[in-house]
Amino acid sequence: MENLLTIFDIAGIFVFAVSGALAAVRNGMDLFGIIVLALMPAVGGGTLRDLMLDQPVFWIEGTQTIWIALGAAFLTFLGARYLDGKRLKWLAWADAIGLSLFCVVGAEKALDVSGSMLVATMMGVVTGVAGGIIRDVICNEIPFVMKRGEIYATAAFFGAGAFCLLVYVGVAGPIALWLAMLGAFLMRAGGIVKGWTLPQALH
Amino acid sequence: MENLLTIFDIAGIFVFAVSGALAAVRNGMDLFGIIVLALMPAVGGGTLRDLMLDQPVFWIEGTQTIWIALGAAFLTFLGARYLDGKRLKWLAWADAIGLSLFCVVGAEKALDVSGSMLVATMMGVVTGVAGGIIRDVICNEIPFVMKRGEIYATAAFFGAGAFCLLVYVGVAGPIALWLAMLGAFLMRAGGIVKGWTLPQALH
Amino acid sequence: MENLLTIFDIAGIFVFAVSGALAAVRNGMDLFGIIVLALMPAVGGGTLRDLMLDQPVFWIEGTQTIWIALGAAFLTFLGARYLDGKRLKWLAWADAIGLSLFCVVGAEKALDVSGSMLVATMMGVVTGVAGGIIRDVICNEIPFVMKRGEIYATAAFFGAGAFCLLVYVGVAGPIALWLAMLGAFLMRAGGIVKGWTLPQALH
Repeated sequence: MENLLTIFDIAGIFVFAVSGALAAVRNGMDLFGIIVLALMPAVGGGTLRDLMLDQPVFWIEGTQTIWIALGAAFLTFLGARYLDGKRLKWLAWADAIGLSLFCVVGAEKALDVSGSMLVATMMGVVTGVAGGIIRDVICNEIPFVMKRGEIYATAAFFGAGAFCLLVYVGVAGPIALWLAMLGAFLMRAGGIVKGWTLPQALH
Repeated sequence: MENLLTIFDIAGIFVFAVSGALAAVRNGMDLFGIIVLALMPAVGGGTLRDLMLDQPVFWIEGTQTIWIALGAAFLTFLGARYLDGKRLKWLAWADAIGLSLFCVVGAEKALDVSGSMLVATMMGVVTGVAGGIIRDVICNEIPFVMKRGEIYATAAFFGAGAFCLLVYVGVAGPIALWLAMLGAFLMRAGGIVKGWTLPQALH
Repeated sequence: MENLLTIFDIAGIFVFAVSGALAAVRNGMDLFGIIVLALMPAVGGGTLRDLMLDQPVFWIEGTQTIWIALGAAFLTFLGARYLDGKRLKWLAWADAIGLSLFCVVGAEKALDVSGSMLVATMMGVVTGVAGGIIRDVICNEIPFVMKRGEIYATAAFFGAGAFCLLVYVGVAGPIALWLAMLGAFLMRAGGIVKGWTLPQALH
């Protein structure tokens, strides 16, 4: 199971970085822009979480995350013409795995440090989606996750919150982690397959 | 007087959060976007201040601020059609009270930690207006406080600087706090009522 | 040599701040906007670096950087009509000196703290260009350094990386610093004089 988590982590970082690199390509940026935008979704959310929790920034402690994101940036740079423009289904699914993992792992870390379920749930969402928000803001776009559209941030909220609740009622850590990840993944899958959305305000 | 400060704090957080939630509604965002944008002005400035001063982030220490901002986000979500589009005078006045309080309280905290009047004045301004700048940047707009228009950030600067000067010349803390708040509020009131502005560069 | 570094530092901060102040003038901002945008390139990158390395923020430790940036903001405010619109060559060269210094000094600090050449190189680039990225994002523009155009961030990358490599092979600190700065400066000079660019992805 530990190995599976590591594979999920690598796949998630890779695909998050590809999402940033593709946004850079779409906006006509050069190689440096591609690298910066690849790093934003890959490490931006976790960096904000660690700063706010006053923990050492995770990618300074162990730099493998950076190498994976840089690899994803270079591969996207080389293969952009084969990737862009199409809505690649496997990208959406790998992204869903990454989102499910990051929101739950972020909530776990924040619950350890702060002891507050509210803070832990928020930090889970931050870990999952804040980097993508920064990516979109740099590209001069209203952030994708904040617009009316397929369930995305809500899945992160659900996963992080479910993990906190499961731990609160006494479920063992690893089981809570897998259950919460499954919940987040299924909710995001509903967004991809069925097009579930969140309501806008009436006005 | 302590109770009055608490009431001002709650009112300020609430109205700052409403300003973010309304910006989200105006940009067609969904409920998640409304919550994110409500949190930015409500806690963004204080978060930046605490990170730069290397202090525990205030809303992680005590989460009531988050609950107030979430409440404001939900109420705005439900009542957006009654709020938006009008320039509501009571919103501007409650916002002015929040601004006056946050700039002075931010300066007080920074003066305690750093001992520098320059740093304290800057941190007072950051506490009062940085969250609103982030709100506008996410919405893809030139930040409201940086454009030619009614005195706003200047009132925060004045309040924070006045607090530092009053403490420097030996005025007791609580008195300096109330005097500086009053000064910031009157200056902001001049912006609301008389339309006071700050100069642009000649070019 | 120490004195020369101090002069370079002051010149660099001053010109970085002018770049922000001019962006504010171009966007029709008021004096407050000019000050905020002057501070972003002048201290934004170093602030992010210090936060991520968990070090005291450099301009809180010693506030002279802030005074220089404020001075640059006021002078730009007063003299905007003489500065804006022209592509001033001396501005580009003073900016190149600042960039060369900041990327190497940022890498040196990060190498001391983290011991990782990857982290140090990244932090060198962050110190040199992150503040300018924030300046452009606030102005609602795709960041200048991420677009296809003259070599800029690449020079910072080269300077920071060269410093790490030189220290790694045993070159004494001060010599490594001057050599790396020279390398970054020459690369940036190639951008200014010859128009060197970085490739975009083919698509």
